[in-house]
Amino acid sequence: MRSLTILGVDPGLRHTGWGVISRRGNQLSLRAFGVISPPTDQDIADRLFYLVKELETILSQWQPDLAALEETFVNVNGKTTLQLGFVRGALLVTMARFGVRVRDFAPRMVKKSLTGSGAAQKAQVAGMVGVLLGTPPPQSPDACDALAVAICGSHEATHQATHETASLS
Amino acid sequence: MRSLTILGVDPGLRHTGWGVISRRGNQLSLRAFGVISPPTDQDIADRLFYLVKELETILSQWQPDLAALEETFVNVNGKTTLQLGFVRGALLVTMARFGVRVRDFAPRMVKKSLTGSGAAQKAQVAGMVGVLLGTPPPQSPDACDALAVAICGSHEATHQATHETASLS
Repeated sequence: MRSLTILGVDPGLRHTGWGVISRRGNQLSLRAFGVISPPTDQDIADRLFYLVKELETILSQWQPDLAALEETFVNVNGKTTLQLGFVRGALLVTMARFGVRVRDFAPRMVKKSLTGSGAAQKAQVAGMVGVLLGTPPPQSPDACDALAVAICGSHEATHQATHETASLS
Repeated sequence: MRSLTILGVDPGLRHTGWGVISRRGNQLSLRAFGVISPPTDQDIADRLFYLVKELETILSQWQPDLAALEETFVNVNGKTTLQLGFVRGALLVTMARFGVRVRDFAPRMVKKSLTGSGAAQKAQVAGMVGVLLGTPPPQSPDACDALAVAICGSHEATHQATHETASLS
């Protein structure tokens, strides 16, 4: 049985959480996680480039089959929305450069996928991340969120694989 | 007297106009212009990557000293703002990758810089692009806007150079 590698990402200009998991059958394992925090004293282009270089290192090292991104909120504040757009645009281009398929997951869907409730608290989600990966969840909320998105993405990937197999038979 | 090469960009997901000019003293010359229109049937990551690859070709070929970007409007529509953010994020990262300094110019500032009025009509701006570059302006409004931003950027670059020279003397 082939193992799937999924990269989860929780995008942000200050802190972008990331987590890599693998799935073989129903078995999930934690591979790596971290947070990318570009220096805040640089201009926006350099901060985005810092983020992209870190992501490139992660993509080279882990070669994920799928990237699962936490969906960017359309904020009431236009400037914040635009900045989130910058980050996401930079990440999306990098995924495309590495030929990694990207799927978006709304925060509500991630929560529901892990806990059964779209309105679950952060602590509940973190608890389930720990249970499903069989290891204490990361202290960093950004990395923990990224792992939660990766797990959500792994469910989707498995469903898709099942459907593809079904449609082939 | 050293010549400055300025790349002007009018960013958009459907059409990104670009134009390269050079400035030696007060003399502006048109070098090249065009419009990048990523295929609309691809997903957003691939469209952004298409845009970036085209930009990389332009940066390699023209090696600009400065990139002047038309400032992205914070739209009332959050989704549109986010998409403009994607494009801008992808462009900014690429400029940083090539070590090209980026300056933003609001549309009003571009108009004022070229015509003396921030409320000038498109046709007036296009007319001035033609006059200042000594050649008929491009038919494409996106390319023409990009050249207008490049010209605005060249003014700024010249002022800056003068100030730097002044502060050195």
